Amino acid sequence: MSVLGDILSTVLDRGVRSIPRIAARNSTTPELVRALLSGSGEISGMAIAQQIFDRYAEMDRPARLGFFRMLAIELDLDPAHVRETLDAYEATPGRETYRAYAKAAEPPRQELIRRLNQLPGGTARLVAMRRDLLGFTREHPDCAALDLDFRHLFGSWFNRGFLVLRPINWDTSAALLDKIIAYEAVHAIQNWDDLRRRLKPRDRRCFAFFHPSMPGEPLIFVEVALTRGVPGSIQALLAEDRADIAPEAADTAVFYSISNCQEGLAGISLGNSLIKQVASDLAVELPNLKTFVTLSPIPGLAAWMAETGLAKPVRGETLRQIAAHYLLDAKSAGGRPRDAVQRFHLGNGASVFRVHGDADTSEKGLAQSGGAMVNYLYDLDRITQNHEGFATAGTIAASAEVRNLASAGRSLASEKEDDEEPTL
Amino acid sequence: MSVLGDILSTVLDRGVRSIPRIAARNSTTPELVRALLSGSGEISGMAIAQQIFDRYAEMDRPARLGFFRMLAIELDLDPAHVRETLDAYEATPGRETYRAYAKAAEPPRQELIRRLNQLPGGTARLVAMRRDLLGFTREHPDCAALDLDFRHLFGSWFNRGFLVLRPINWDTSAALLDKIIAYEAVHAIQNWDDLRRRLKPRDRRCFAFFHPSMPGEPLIFVEVALTRGVPGSIQALLAEDRADIAPEAADTAVFYSISNCQEGLAGISLGNSLIKQVASDLAVELPNLKTFVTLSPIPGLAAWMAETGLAKPVRGETLRQIAAHYLLDAKSAGGRPRDAVQRFHLGNGASVFRVHGDADTSEKGLAQSGGAMVNYLYDLDRITQNHEGFATAGTIAASAEVRNLASAGRSLASEKEDDEEPTL
Amino acid sequence: MSVLGDILSTVLDRGVRSIPRIAARNSTTPELVRALLSGSGEISGMAIAQQIFDRYAEMDRPARLGFFRMLAIELDLDPAHVRETLDAYEATPGRETYRAYAKAAEPPRQELIRRLNQLPGGTARLVAMRRDLLGFTREHPDCAALDLDFRHLFGSWFNRGFLVLRPINWDTSAALLDKIIAYEAVHAIQNWDDLRRRLKPRDRRCFAFFHPSMPGEPLIFVEVALTRGVPGSIQALLAEDRADIAPEAADTAVFYSISNCQEGLAGISLGNSLIKQVASDLAVELPNLKTFVTLSPIPGLAAWMAETGLAKPVRGETLRQIAAHYLLDAKSAGGRPRDAVQRFHLGNGASVFRVHGDADTSEKGLAQSGGAMVNYLYDLDRITQNHEGFATAGTIAASAEVRNLASAGRSLASEKEDDEEPTL
Amino acid sequence: MSVLGDILSTVLDRGVRSIPRIAARNSTTPELVRALLSGSGEISGMAIAQQIFDRYAEMDRPARLGFFRMLAIELDLDPAHVRETLDAYEATPGRETYRAYAKAAEPPRQELIRRLNQLPGGTARLVAMRRDLLGFTREHPDCAALDLDFRHLFGSWFNRGFLVLRPINWDTSAALLDKIIAYEAVHAIQNWDDLRRRLKPRDRRCFAFFHPSMPGEPLIFVEVALTRGVPGSIQALLAEDRADIAPEAADTAVFYSISNCQEGLAGISLGNSLIKQVASDLAVELPNLKTFVTLSPIPGLAAWMAETGLAKPVRGETLRQIAAHYLLDAKSAGGRPRDAVQRFHLGNGASVFRVHGDADTSEKGLAQSGGAMVNYLYDLDRITQNHEGFATAGTIAASAEVRNLASAGRSLASEKEDDEEPTL
Repeated sequence: MSVLGDILSTVLDRGVRSIPRIAARNSTTPELVRALLSGSGEISGMAIAQQIFDRYAEMDRPARLGFFRMLAIELDLDPAHVRETLDAYEATPGRETYRAYAKAAEPPRQELIRRLNQLPGGTARLVAMRRDLLGFTREHPDCAALDLDFRHLFGSWFNRGFLVLRPINWDTSAALLDKIIAYEAVHAIQNWDDLRRRLKPRDRRCFAFFHPSMPGEPLIFVEVALTRGVPGSIQALLAEDRADIAPEAADTAVFYSISNCQEGLAGISLGNSLIKQVASDLAVELPNLKTFVTLSPIPGLAAWMAETGLAKPVRGETLRQIAAHYLLDAKSAGGRPRDAVQRFHLGNGASVFRVHGDADTSEKGLAQSGGAMVNYLYDLDRITQNHEGFATAGTIAASAEVRNLASAGRSLASEKEDDEEPTL
Repeated sequence: MSVLGDILSTVLDRGVRSIPRIAARNSTTPELVRALLSGSGEISGMAIAQQIFDRYAEMDRPARLGFFRMLAIELDLDPAHVRETLDAYEATPGRETYRAYAKAAEPPRQELIRRLNQLPGGTARLVAMRRDLLGFTREHPDCAALDLDFRHLFGSWFNRGFLVLRPINWDTSAALLDKIIAYEAVHAIQNWDDLRRRLKPRDRRCFAFFHPSMPGEPLIFVEVALTRGVPGSIQALLAEDRADIAPEAADTAVFYSISNCQEGLAGISLGNSLIKQVASDLAVELPNLKTFVTLSPIPGLAAWMAETGLAKPVRGETLRQIAAHYLLDAKSAGGRPRDAVQRFHLGNGASVFRVHGDADTSEKGLAQSGGAMVNYLYDLDRITQNHEGFATAGTIAASAEVRNLASAGRSLASEKEDDEEPTL
Repeated sequence: MSVLGDILSTVLDRGVRSIPRIAARNSTTPELVRALLSGSGEISGMAIAQQIFDRYAEMDRPARLGFFRMLAIELDLDPAHVRETLDAYEATPGRETYRAYAKAAEPPRQELIRRLNQLPGGTARLVAMRRDLLGFTREHPDCAALDLDFRHLFGSWFNRGFLVLRPINWDTSAALLDKIIAYEAVHAIQNWDDLRRRLKPRDRRCFAFFHPSMPGEPLIFVEVALTRGVPGSIQALLAEDRADIAPEAADTAVFYSISNCQEGLAGISLGNSLIKQVASDLAVELPNLKTFVTLSPIPGLAAWMAETGLAKPVRGETLRQIAAHYLLDAKSAGGRPRDAVQRFHLGNGASVFRVHGDADTSEKGLAQSGGAMVNYLYDLDRITQNHEGFATAGTIAASAEVRNLASAGRSLASEKEDDEEPTL
Repeated sequence: MSVLGDILSTVLDRGVRSIPRIAARNSTTPELVRALLSGSGEISGMAIAQQIFDRYAEMDRPARLGFFRMLAIELDLDPAHVRETLDAYEATPGRETYRAYAKAAEPPRQELIRRLNQLPGGTARLVAMRRDLLGFTREHPDCAALDLDFRHLFGSWFNRGFLVLRPINWDTSAALLDKIIAYEAVHAIQNWDDLRRRLKPRDRRCFAFFHPSMPGEPLIFVEVALTRGVPGSIQALLAEDRADIAPEAADTAVFYSISNCQEGLAGISLGNSLIKQVASDLAVELPNLKTFVTLSPIPGLAAWMAETGLAKPVRGETLRQIAAHYLLDAKSAGGRPRDAVQRFHLGNGASVFRVHGDADTSEKGLAQSGGAMVNYLYDLDRITQNHEGFATAGTIAASAEVRNLASAGRSLASEKEDDEEPTL
């Protein structure tokens, strides 16, 4: 890798030295952007791309916003030209008319991003660039279309077919493990001893997706515990003094944490492939595994209980009933399940399998859900059906047990409402 | 690789088993195509993609044409919808209007190709599919736009930043060397002994570009000889009994053969990066190398001589003069140099350096150019300038020696014309 | 590897420059040998070792003999010193007396060989050196003890625990495959097409043992065919136009060729581990494999038939009977089976399983055995027993079929003798 | 590796099942030892070796002593047989007489150790076994000869030519880094942050020797700091808040810690090769490096000062003088330098370069040497000379500065003695 880097900097040094017309050092960034778009020589293109990335790296936040706006506005679509070429293609469909249309229909920003990507290491820099861009899109809607262009190209480049699944374990390099510690988003990894407990025991697994052009950067990873039976407590699962079991003795694989690593890839679907791939992989390696579940937080439960006036300190069975009711019945404005974690797993084809109280007794767990957690079940034989049912009809697949709990929960909630009515 | 394959087929088997609504075996191919486009679940998507590829593999040539036409027509643009969404975006630029436009502006074929690419191994299958498609586009212009869609996506996926340069040598696997033998397009490799002569000696090199998702398939490769001085004969360069030299003693690197391996990647620029990357790479490894040249055929010379009435058997100095004249002056209808090999190297920023007679005395060499060959010079400090000059003004960079030869060649040609005039 | 080489030559250059007392260039080889034995510094040791190897490389055959004799004589045991230290150890067993004895009991040649082995790459050079030495031992018995010293050390260094088993297939480098072609000793590999037929089909395997310090050099390799049923013809097994089968459909693994690669390792047992390891390996990979056999030549059969007056052209059943008789009954002067191939397999624990006529119809096969071949059976559950029986009592394990054939063969032979008696 | 392991256990399981005559479970350990020595079949040998290792693993300390004594006594030399075969060899030198002598001259223990080493993984188990043995040799001198046999074989197996040098850095696996933390013997590594400070910065390096048959176990490693100038304080060198420098800007490489990892390899020289190899390696990679030094403790200084009555709290210049005097003049009973660290580096060809006070202000540093440390210089052009001078004449190479300090130190010491005389 570093040899390639050396060679490249040699090329680029030469390249930059020999660009009289661009006069890189005296050019403005917009001039460099236009030069990159107009040129077709790859070597000078690489030199310009390097210049643009280097300048970007030195920009402060306002300058970066200016850069994005320049791309958003100057490299936007030309609607008149789109219409003109579209008319011509419609009139005379053919190679040349289609080529002209296709070129016009896409804003030049997309070609710019592709040309920046020529530079070895460019992909990672573009992902970091979009991370910055996402920090602006809410307040600066004129950058939204640019973001969609990034997303469109990333969707094509980070296609499942290009991703590589790799195990993360105690034979993984410290440099990569540093990143796992940094990126864990669900149950924070305190230190190397904590990490060792999650990666080294024979009944623990971790897998990540990588892209070949960013080999040192995990994109998303999932942590797995192999257990006997479906666990109902994250603290028990991660206990320091627990006894490990032989992998062959496990009947259940528990996906207890899944973390996206690259903010710049927001909106690019990676997680659903990951869980399914890992489940299939483990099913082959360990034929005794029969059940594939998550042990997931219910992040919005407490807030919803407060909103609906159920915020009395509830525990045990009652909490389980209310949590099940929330999961099966609470909807967002758009009519979809209110809980984002749940939407993710239902969208993958999972079903709501079990609900537990006293399952996450950490401060965070108690605050967000009164300690309740949920298992989503990945039944490899039913995920397609579940997915289709959820995608087309909004059907939430759930076990009988959970449906019964939810039914009880509904009664509690309506009693509550009944109780409250007199106060009107 | 094969473990992944095993796992995958497991996934797919399960996937296929569990798709009641698609009823894969009873669905028509267009139904599968629509199902792939409408679904968003990746696992079922993979199962459908597999089905489509498998069916395609079994189609005969007319069926394949039918398949491509179906894609070309049914998954074409909807111009009315493009206009509508474009109007809306123009009226109210914003995230949602742009998203709608971007979706409409691109024919659904492109999304189909991206979804087929989800399948591990899909990229190679798509490249093979386009190879077939290219066999139809001349006679069936209604497939041209579909081909441009493939080309557009391949341009993005086979971006320089995603390619990996690897040496090919005697430590390379036999499986890969089989492909080098098969793909060599310029000076055919007769057998393994011939291959050994090109790869094993210390003064020979070979490099190829690979794409991470097609690791066993070279995309393009270049064969290099390290020499003292610029060679003027391909037979001498490849002689069985030549004495090799220490790489450190060489002052010249000769790119004597460059071969594209994937017909399905026609039109995707790979060669210019390759030569420049290899030249830069060798310049770092062997600082004594001062000159980077090709030893290239002049494939159209004999035909052009026949056309212009110069087809008397010429040899030696006269042939060199005529060849130089051809290279500097013969133009195609579009005004560009007539010689395709020359166009490639000039487009890369090379210059016409030397012209040789008796340089390729093989049957093919004598037939196509009377045995003449040419060195194109890659001067790393001038390639950007040369490229720009050629791209913008059509300027052909050439050495004084070649310009002088061409001048003499022009005189010969006009004498010839003078000689011929009386016959009018 | 080459980086290591570079570094090393740097070290060695410096080392050699800085050895004033040794004055390497002016020293005789015996002086260098003594310097290597007396010094304890590894760096100067490496420099001297390099010198000795370099000088050896330039010696002609008589000079090499001189070198070996010098080692044999000057670095031989000092019997008086052995006795003295042995007496001391016997009188006062202890650390120091044992150390003194152990040093005296071993000729200094062994320490010299160990010190030559310090040099990276030294092992391969020592193996080559012993190959030369073996060319002298018959005529120069004074070198025999030196050869036993080499053999003793090689036995320790090429211990089974240090060897690495690797598959050889079409993904193997051309450089290594060149060696497979060169070293194949049983059924010569004609060319790369022949090699491809033995390595590439899915029902063919090849495995070799390597030593970590000679990573590019196979030590011994075995070629395997996966078949349905036990084959009785090598020509059928290697036919160009045969149809391959799925490995999972095979019930038999046939070890049809086993070749030692390093003459310098003669007498170091490698083959028995190899066959058993490969058999066990394949049994795990392909559980359908039930039978592990060789298809082996009977190299001494024709000569023995000539000796015993049975040299009439026999074919078919008669040949099989005589071959079985030969295998079960013909003994060398020492009372062991006359056939060396058979001794090897019986010593490994194999049994004589089947005998075939018309099995090797090549010129060589007809000449050495009238075309007869034999299957030796490796029954993993019985090899220990067979081995012990053969090693302790000379018992030849054989199938009932072969015993019956041999019995018929004995009758033929005695009839023959009866027939011949009148001529007395 | 684990595949190999799987296969092997399969082989061994079969092997063990099929050894009726050995009746492994009913055999005593001495019977197994004899069986391993008498058998020649490798598969059954492996099964027996496995049995012996497994039994050993379950033995308590007294049982292990019993095991070692059994090897020491039952498998000792037979002096009468040595004499007999030696007489025969002397009378008739030749292949057979030498073979008989060589077999007799070596105690059967050595062959036993070699046969235990057949088992994959056997080498590491034997190294661990010797570690245990070393715990007995002081109190049980009858085990000393056995230890010398282990050492003799390990010297041959861990020959420099078989070792592999590998960098240890932040790309190294956590599993291996765990071992670096555990084995660091000079300046303890507190935790992963401390480790990161030693391995990750661009101006830090670490290298270890490995043996191919123990790929997960470092044998010895050295930690290196790249600095400008020769450092005189270990705390400054390892400070948390120090600024790193570009490797190219460094002129000095400091070997500040070297740790043996395998107690079972005690007495096998590894360290001298390591330092010299790393120095040569770094000299090639970073040509600006001109000086290669250690920053070493002086572990016996305080004890010696106490013995010689110099134990008043001394600091600064006086301490440096006394330390230099100690290093150049203090001798052990055998007349060699008293300081073991110094003996190691002088034996490698280093010289005493600089002496520092206040150089190790840790509790341990103050306690053992009043805070003094020393730089030993590795001048690649002089190490052979220095080594030879030290090895043959006991000459201690030292810089003029150190010699002057020592001279002053001698005066201090004799003044002290003068002061003390009156008390007589």
